[in-house]
Amino acid sequence: MRTLEWDYDKNELVMIDQRILPAELKFVSLHSDREVAEAIKDMVIRGAPAIGAAAAYGMALSAVHSKAKSRESFKLEMKDAANVLLQSRPTAVNLSWGVKRILNIVENSHDPLDTLKERILQEAHIISDEDVEINKKMATFGADLIDDGDTIIHHCNTGSLAAVDWGTALGVVRMAHEQGKQIHVLVDETRPRLQGARLTAWELQQYKIPFEIISDNAAGYFLKSGKVNKVIFGADRVAANGDVANKIGTYMLALAAYDNNVPAYSTVPTSTIDLSLPSGDQIPIEERDPDEVLGISYQGHQVAPTGARARNPAFDVTPHRLISGIITEKGVIYPPFLENIAKTLNTEE
Amino acid sequence: MRTLEWDYDKNELVMIDQRILPAELKFVSLHSDREVAEAIKDMVIRGAPAIGAAAAYGMALSAVHSKAKSRESFKLEMKDAANVLLQSRPTAVNLSWGVKRILNIVENSHDPLDTLKERILQEAHIISDEDVEINKKMATFGADLIDDGDTIIHHCNTGSLAAVDWGTALGVVRMAHEQGKQIHVLVDETRPRLQGARLTAWELQQYKIPFEIISDNAAGYFLKSGKVNKVIFGADRVAANGDVANKIGTYMLALAAYDNNVPAYSTVPTSTIDLSLPSGDQIPIEERDPDEVLGISYQGHQVAPTGARARNPAFDVTPHRLISGIITEKGVIYPPFLENIAKTLNTEE
Repeated sequence: MRTLEWDYDKNELVMIDQRILPAELKFVSLHSDREVAEAIKDMVIRGAPAIGAAAAYGMALSAVHSKAKSRESFKLEMKDAANVLLQSRPTAVNLSWGVKRILNIVENSHDPLDTLKERILQEAHIISDEDVEINKKMATFGADLIDDGDTIIHHCNTGSLAAVDWGTALGVVRMAHEQGKQIHVLVDETRPRLQGARLTAWELQQYKIPFEIISDNAAGYFLKSGKVNKVIFGADRVAANGDVANKIGTYMLALAAYDNNVPAYSTVPTSTIDLSLPSGDQIPIEERDPDEVLGISYQGHQVAPTGARARNPAFDVTPHRLISGIITEKGVIYPPFLENIAKTLNTEE
Repeated sequence: MRTLEWDYDKNELVMIDQRILPAELKFVSLHSDREVAEAIKDMVIRGAPAIGAAAAYGMALSAVHSKAKSRESFKLEMKDAANVLLQSRPTAVNLSWGVKRILNIVENSHDPLDTLKERILQEAHIISDEDVEINKKMATFGADLIDDGDTIIHHCNTGSLAAVDWGTALGVVRMAHEQGKQIHVLVDETRPRLQGARLTAWELQQYKIPFEIISDNAAGYFLKSGKVNKVIFGADRVAANGDVANKIGTYMLALAAYDNNVPAYSTVPTSTIDLSLPSGDQIPIEERDPDEVLGISYQGHQVAPTGARARNPAFDVTPHRLISGIITEKGVIYPPFLENIAKTLNTEE
């Protein structure tokens, strides 16, 4: 099963509700761009590639259910849908990439409206299928970097659930495992939303890859112990110079890897690379609801005292000097990143 | 109220149960060295200075309730109590320091048994009173380093609850606040036991010092933002070269501070400095129950999937190259630490 699928009987988008995994595997059905935007905002679905595909399907829902009679009013509806979706989350560039691919079709089409609607839905399917293909290519390039016997620290969730299937960094781990390499994963729990302890742990159980969950704080200890061979994570946006915006905590993890000469790899489809931004300083960082920090209980007890406030930036930027390589579907990009990213993005596959 | 107090009516030790704060302020009464050892192991009481004093009172409980008739059997009982207490937690050196201060009296005394018992209890009181005095001195030295308007990141709990009163690093913050300096504290929640979100937040509320709780992962983001002026934490053991063993996550926090030229201070009584260890590599690191990592729920939902395992090192070692200064009751020690720690410890106050 893919993270999100189109139901042709009902013309709706079906996805796993990632907020309640692993306690329950539940599906939700979405019927409009607005419902998809809400689902992205609430993290029913998350992960840069997954929300790129979800946004494209959000556009498709708007198209398929449109009652517009003229091309002009249809175009206005699609632009409105695009705006709604683009506002759902600011950091991952894949979201706007998915929306723009659909808008391109709308802008350049001369088809009758019904044909256009069908083409939009097809484009969402293509984005979705491409994502799986791209992820498998990334996984294959990345798996070459993983050695038999490696212990790997992984941050957040970058598996099937973060994409349509396979995922980015965790796809690399899965591919190496399928190649027969013995791997042990130390899973950063990834506060505040605990995507590591909830989603990555759940996926690793399905793949039968041995793992242990650690508090994010413990990554430095294990890196310093000399027992960790690789650090791997995804990214929500990569700047032209190789700076990586990713789930909060990645920067400190990369610092600890660097301090102990352990290579740290970011794994992204090239659609996550935003050449319009010279450096990570220009990447917008979303600050989310403080309840994500405050809303935990520890062994049944309240944690923060009543009335306490919290801050909750959802991402941070890891400077490219701490990144050993960026694994993409076109190969692994090594420093100097400014030069090599440009070169890779201009290469035809 | 102090974190721990002796009840003369019942000859028992009374302490706050820190496991259930801030949900509930509850006291527990302990009657034997074994009960104190259990309380330390279970973290009813925690914090290096606090468990030093608690261990001394554990020895006093053993002495006061002893039914030994001869000096010889009394000494054996005290040695047995010492062993029980020393095994409760391995990392904080204050624990063995507190036990040894009592054992010294036992070894060197020629008093009748009843007088000796009384002297042992007095020594526990002295350790407890000294702790408060020492902490106030540290707080005063440390407060000189804090500027009006500072934003400070603080890790774990190092306040009154971590000591008999005042505490170490949080004592510095409190003293600066009492001097009228405007301070804002970003409180690392400090997974897995969440001493920051639970205990430090609770203490800061009492002192009316403005604060916000952050996930430990977010410290790097705020340090990189340029809005943090100081990082401050305690220590459970400091080696002769200035390497600092402290609550898990301190190493990554210190790395992020260093990477952004923000000074990072460890605050410790000199009893926490262990000159017998040349470097932090020799400090024993306790690994605690994985349930401390797994035993949280997020917004009412299970976090880790059933059957998942975890690793839980409770401390890490921060190399002295990342430490800007060590605040003690004898003044602030600056690099080169090997030389200056030795000099400071040989100085009479």
